[in-house]
Order: sequence, then structure tokens, then C-alpha cells
Amino acid sequence: MQILEAEKKVIQQLEKGFDGYLEDVRAAIRQPSVSRTGEGVEKMAVWVMAYLRDLGAKAKLVPGARFPIIEGELSTYGAKKTLLFYELYDVQPAEEEGWISPPFEAAIHPAEDGVEKIVGRGAFNSKGPMVGFLTVLRAFRNAGIPLPVNFRFVIEGEEEIGSPSLEPYIRQNLEQLRKCDAAFIPYMATNSRGKTQIRLGFKGLLLLEFSIEGGTWGGPAEHDIHPQHTAWIHNPTWELLNALTSLQSQDGRLCINGLDQFVTGPSREDRELIEELALSFDPDAWLEELGARRFKYQPDPVRLLTHLMFDPTLNIQALWIGQTKPGEEPPIVMPMRAVAHADLRLVPEMDVDTTVNCLHAHLDHRGLGHVKVRLKSAYPWSKTSLRESVVQSLVAACRRHAKEVEIFPLHAGAAPLYLFTNIVGIPFAFGGLGHGMLAHVANEYISVEGLQLFQRSMASFLFEFAGRDSET
Amino acid sequence: MQILEAEKKVIQQLEKGFDGYLEDVRAAIRQPSVSRTGEGVEKMAVWVMAYLRDLGAKAKLVPGARFPIIEGELSTYGAKKTLLFYELYDVQPAEEEGWISPPFEAAIHPAEDGVEKIVGRGAFNSKGPMVGFLTVLRAFRNAGIPLPVNFRFVIEGEEEIGSPSLEPYIRQNLEQLRKCDAAFIPYMATNSRGKTQIRLGFKGLLLLEFSIEGGTWGGPAEHDIHPQHTAWIHNPTWELLNALTSLQSQDGRLCINGLDQFVTGPSREDRELIEELALSFDPDAWLEELGARRFKYQPDPVRLLTHLMFDPTLNIQALWIGQTKPGEEPPIVMPMRAVAHADLRLVPEMDVDTTVNCLHAHLDHRGLGHVKVRLKSAYPWSKTSLRESVVQSLVAACRRHAKEVEIFPLHAGAAPLYLFTNIVGIPFAFGGLGHGMLAHVANEYISVEGLQLFQRSMASFLFEFAGRDSET
Repeated sequence: MQILEAEKKVIQQLEKGFDGYLEDVRAAIRQPSVSRTGEGVEKMAVWVMAYLRDLGAKAKLVPGARFPIIEGELSTYGAKKTLLFYELYDVQPAEEEGWISPPFEAAIHPAEDGVEKIVGRGAFNSKGPMVGFLTVLRAFRNAGIPLPVNFRFVIEGEEEIGSPSLEPYIRQNLEQLRKCDAAFIPYMATNSRGKTQIRLGFKGLLLLEFSIEGGTWGGPAEHDIHPQHTAWIHNPTWELLNALTSLQSQDGRLCINGLDQFVTGPSREDRELIEELALSFDPDAWLEELGARRFKYQPDPVRLLTHLMFDPTLNIQALWIGQTKPGEEPPIVMPMRAVAHADLRLVPEMDVDTTVNCLHAHLDHRGLGHVKVRLKSAYPWSKTSLRESVVQSLVAACRRHAKEVEIFPLHAGAAPLYLFTNIVGIPFAFGGLGHGMLAHVANEYISVEGLQLFQRSMASFLFEFAGRDSET
Repeated sequence: MQILEAEKKVIQQLEKGFDGYLEDVRAAIRQPSVSRTGEGVEKMAVWVMAYLRDLGAKAKLVPGARFPIIEGELSTYGAKKTLLFYELYDVQPAEEEGWISPPFEAAIHPAEDGVEKIVGRGAFNSKGPMVGFLTVLRAFRNAGIPLPVNFRFVIEGEEEIGSPSLEPYIRQNLEQLRKCDAAFIPYMATNSRGKTQIRLGFKGLLLLEFSIEGGTWGGPAEHDIHPQHTAWIHNPTWELLNALTSLQSQDGRLCINGLDQFVTGPSREDRELIEELALSFDPDAWLEELGARRFKYQPDPVRLLTHLMFDPTLNIQALWIGQTKPGEEPPIVMPMRAVAHADLRLVPEMDVDTTVNCLHAHLDHRGLGHVKVRLKSAYPWSKTSLRESVVQSLVAACRRHAKEVEIFPLHAGAAPLYLFTNIVGIPFAFGGLGHGMLAHVANEYISVEGLQLFQRSMASFLFEFAGRDSET
């Protein structure tokens, strides 16, 4: 009862002080922090550090490859558990056309379809949830309620340029980080239909470049040649296209020799979650959200969801043959070079090295070893069990304030949360209530109501996590 | 003997007056006539018309889609046969880097590897052979020798932009053109190794655009989407790549359902010519010329030459997936659109319509009818028999002045000479002695010695043709 009372007070405080908390979030959005160009990143780091210190945390800047990591610690007497709080304070560039208000203005747009929005670069990814979470800690202080858990903060400023300093930082601070009970990454996980999707894991990601150039294997080795010679000289284009299509079955699934044995599919827990998700699965709503007219497979909910989450995939982001720019009329030549950029998504139990080795062996076996494969970057999949108390706590907190909370065993998107599960060796939870959208494109936003729901879910999460026994 | 005497006099005159004839060719190169931009094209048309009139021809400009066709007639009392002389007076743009002298200067560069060159845009393609031929007619006049054949001139200024007015002109003037005994297209056909290659025919050409966009068939129909969804939404890229690779066998040959029956391969005459070519076939010289290290097939001369000339081929000139420019790091998306530009070369007895129909049926049969195929332009193959007197005359004339004259039954490159064989219904000959190179790239040239050899071969050709009985 004491806890319930305290939770109530914090939530009352969140409501009472909302105008101020909203301004904190808007202030953070107004400070540009574009890691790709460097604009404002250092200022933003200082802003976040000052905010943490103001909450009573110890905080400092740890130099990174380009921008510092903010390291912080906030301990409360009597709190038994510690959360490793991970977030980012940098944002994507905001040079897209079509912004309805300047991207670093954080303008509030009046309700449209009932949604009042804060529009700005970083609103959703990730200043809204990051600062939104910190305002919850502020509300505890303002309400005079001690924080129920301790925090260790790791907030990086290089996420949008590939997080070059994060893994080194984690490896250098392993001893401290292992004292944390779980990692937590706040996220506003409610979609435009009001469904909140908690994901227990992420696919892994290989970014690959496939390239070919004429050489001793065949093809034009010195310059583009006249296409008449494709009659008797190897055409590099066909070699690249043959290599790529050999990796994909006719029904559109990844097929690399020897890799199937590592694709284990959903576990029993995963299958149970999928069956539950299937009950309320709305294919038309998904298609509408994606701007697509049909799925690749028959619309059986269990099978579709299993494909989405547990199929490894290969996507070509870009492919260039010849030097002609898109839309130009190309010269009539046989280009000597061809390049494709691709992303390959890893599912349990595929491993980065094994996958890369299978890929090379697959091409060699087909006599396509002259198609070069360059691994641009890679990280493995990661997953936390629903039984982990940090996950249970997040789910319970979200369900306290919202009706439709769905649990996805795996996100079809990729994120490097293996850093927590595989390297630090602790479980993670990722999510929260609240609606936001359009990360990385124009008019990124969070809804004002979503921010409030998010705050409440975070307050409840902290009480839940503090009160729950760790299972492990 | 009378003819031999006359031929000797003309050749003497060509030598004596060479400096002046060379200046005529250089003057033509110095007049830019870039049909793509329009630069100087009208002036060049007037220049050529004036040159024809100066030879005693009737000549006028017939308006074309953009630039006029020069129509001319030059009859000589006593001459029994008439040649339809086809050439072009326009050139490609000359904006490439690396010219050793300005492209419209027609500078003469001193001997390098024994070759003194006239360097300039259009030197080889085709002002050198066009004006070079006209200077031979001038030499007849200067020597006081009557021309042994009559001429009908059709010289267009739109060849480098796809000859939009040529077929209409030919169809409108069919009655007159059918009075010609044969078409002749001068060309400096001696390569850098001193071998002259006379081609009796050309492959046909389909220029195709393959494109795909998400729609009712599947795929993202409104915008690019996150690549994670390739797990359950069709990926347009794979559909395009599957369509393209389905058209090509693993060993690199065109394979379109139902098309094989129309690929009849070399005729008996063609096979005899190939066997003769094979005797002096030098695979290393070919590879060196192409900047390639090996052929697609075992280096058996007869088989290689048959592949080169009698295989239909498909080449991808450009392929774009996504909007990223070559060399840029692409965004991580599943592009909703993909486009490829291709050239498909037709061999006997493939027909344009049948080939296009087979292509569509092939894709439909594989469930790939949503990959759109747009025919950008098309023309059929064309071929003249070695037995035609115009061909016999050209070969005999070339052999009179050069040792190595090879006869290829078909050029692996494409040219729309079906206009003469299929529409006018007369045989053609294409060629002549003399070395030139680098059409469409920097430092296009003809050799000075090559121009002289060319002139001599043309003079002899006219006497040969006049004196030979028509076979048909």
C-alpha cells in the first residue's frame, strides 16, 4: 500500500507539473545535436550532464571517438536494484524537405485527428523518451518521493553515426556495469492505432557491400567495353546479379548454403507470444501502415508474424551498374564494375562469423568467388526472456495505464542490444507507453498526450521493478 | 585495260592532290555538328551540300525532325549502275576529358608507333570516311576521268540522336531509291594490327527498360519502407533481379522461353567464312584490344567467332535501385522502385515483334508480369551475301591495296541497315581500307596513311562495281 501511495503521488506530480516537464523536453529538441555534421552536439552533452546533476546524480563526460559519452550515477538510500539506463543525445540531420515547422523549433501543433503533436528532429528518436524519462525522476524529487531504484546512466552522442565509442566504453567499464541488474532503454512504443508493442529482442545486422570488377577471372579489366562483346566476354553485371539472386529463393527467402541449421525459429515462449499476438493481429492495419497492398505469404496471422520476426532477410539498399545517375539515359556500354549495398538481418541462433563464412562458401561453391563481399559492419541478435523481472515490470507498468499492450518476442528491426545481453551479461527491457513517429524523416513527432502516458508508464515501471523479485 | 588505265590515273591524282584532299577532310572535322546540342549542325549541312554541288551533283536539304537530310544525285553519261551512298554529317558531343588536342581542331599529330594521326571528333565517325569518299570523286574530276557509276546521296544529320527522320525519308522516296543497284556505306575498317574487317551484316537491337514499383501485386506501394519488412512484404528489387537473371542462363547465354527456335545460327556461307577467319584468329590480340584477360568460352576459334557473331545477347547498361548516386552511402531502406536499362541484340532469324512477345510471355509464365518492360527502340538484323556484286567489288578493291582483308558474316555490333535490305530491298556493302579508332571517346582519330589507303580502295571499288555483272 505504501508503494501504491507513493506511485499515486508521483503521478499526481507529473500531471501538476506537466507544463514544466513538457518545456524540458522541448528545450532538449531545440538544442540541435547532429552527430553527422557536429552541429550543437557538445552543447547538448553539457545540457544533459547538467540535467543529471540537477537530479542529484554524479555525472561526467567521457571522451568518445567524436563526441562524449555522458556517464552518470544516481543512488538512493534503501534502493536495492540498479538500472543501466541507455539512451542517445544525438540526432539525424534534418535537411529533408516538407517540415511543417522548423525541425529545431519543437513547435506544438494543434490537434489533428485528435492528436496534439510536438514536431521536431529528435522528438521521437530519442529526446522525447530520454528527457521524458528524466522528467519522471524530477517529478519524484518534486513530490518528495525517494527513487525506488538506483541508476547508472550511459548516454551516447554518436548513435546516429554508428556508435563507434559505445562498445569500447562498455568493455572498459564492464566491472561497474555488471553490478547493474538490468538495462533499460525507454521508447515510446504506442503506434498510431493505440497499440503498444513491447519487443523482447532485436535481430542482428550485417551491412554488406557486394562488388565486382573485370579481372583475371574474366570481363573487361581496363574500362567499360562495347556491349556486343557480352557474346564472348564475361559481363560483370550478370556475375553480380547471379550472385545476389543465388542468395534468395524464388519464394523470396534468404537461402545461403549451410545456414539453415542455424535458423532455429521461435522458442516455445516465442510461439506462445506469437499465438497471443495472432488473436488481435489486423493484417489490413499493418498493410495500411506500410503503404502496401498485400503480404508475400497467405495472411495466416501466426505464419505471418513468424516470418516477420524469425526469418533472416536480405535487402538491397542500392545497386549501381555503370556511372550513370538515376534518371539519366545511360550510354550503351558493358560496365566493367557493379556494386550493391545490402543489409542482412540475423535471427536466433545465427552468428555473425558463421553467417559471413557461409556466405563466402556459398559464392565460392557456385564459382562466384570473384564477386567480392565486404562486411561494412555487423552485430548479433539479442533477446531477453519474458520471465525476466525487468520485462515483467515494464509490461505490467504499461498495462496499468493502457488497454492494448502486445508483446513481440523479437523486433524485425535490428539494434545492438547484444552489448547488454552478450557483453555486460544482463537482461534488458525496451519500451514504454506513448505515441511518436517518423524517426529519420520530416515531421518527426511525439504526441503531447503520448508524453504524459509515457511518463506515467515510466513511474509505474520503477515501482514495479523495485518491488519485483529478480527471477535469475 | 582502259579501266585499269583510268584507275591508275585517279590513284595518281589522289597522291598528287593529297594535301588538298586532306585539308577538305580537316575542314569538315573543324566544323562542329553536334546533333545532341545542335552546335553547328546546320552549317555542316550547307557545307556538305556545297561540296556535292561542287562535284557537279544536284543536291538539296530535305527538312528532318531536327536537322535536314542532304539529298543528292550525281549521274554520269554512260554509267550503268547507281550506288545509294549513305552517310552521316553529325557527330557525338566532345565533352570527354583527356583530348590531346581540341576536338574541333583536327590537329595532325606526328607519328607515334609509326602512325601519324588526324585527331578530332568525327575524324573516324564519320567525317573521315564521308569526306574522304567525296574527295575521291573530286580526284576523278581533277584527273578528267568520268565517274564509272551514278550516285544517289542520302546523308543525314541525326544519326547520333537515333535517326528519327531516316526511315520516314526512305519510305517517302522508295520509288527513287529502289532504282539504285546497291547501298554503300564507307567505313575505315582496318584495325590497329593492320587487318581490315569487312562485315556483311549487323545484329539488330532492342533497347529495353525493365522497371518495377510496388503495387497491387505486392511490395511497398506508396514510399520506400524499412528493410525489416522484406520478411513479409515483397521486395521490388528481388522481383527485378529475378526477372533479369531468368533471361540469362548460368553459363551466360540469353535464354528466353520459345526464342531458341528463331536463333538459326550461321548459314553454310557464314560457316565457310568463319572457318576462314579462324585460320588467322588471334585470341590474345582480341583480348588485348578489349582490355580483357579471358573469353567466356574455351578459346576454340570457330566456336568463339560463332558465339561473337551468332549469339543473341542481353547487356545491362545501367541499373538503379534506390535514389542514391553512385559512390554515396545509401540509406537503409527497401526501395519501392527499381529500373534497369538493357540492350538485346538480335541475330538471324530473330524478329523484333516475336522477341518482344517471347520476352513478355517468359516473364508472365514465371509470375513476373509485374516487372514492366518498355521497348525504347528496336530494329532488326540485316545481312548481305558475299555473292552480291557490291560486296565482291568492295572485297576485291580492298585486297588490291592491302594484304589482310577478313570477311565477317555478321558484325556483333548493331546498325539499322535493314533500311536498305528490308525496306528498299537492295544489298549493301560497308567498309573500306584505312585505320581509325576511338569513336565516341576522347582522341578519336584516323591515321593519315589510313586516309590515303581508304581513298585508293574507294577508287578501285567504283571501277570494280562498274565492271562487275550483278549476280541477282
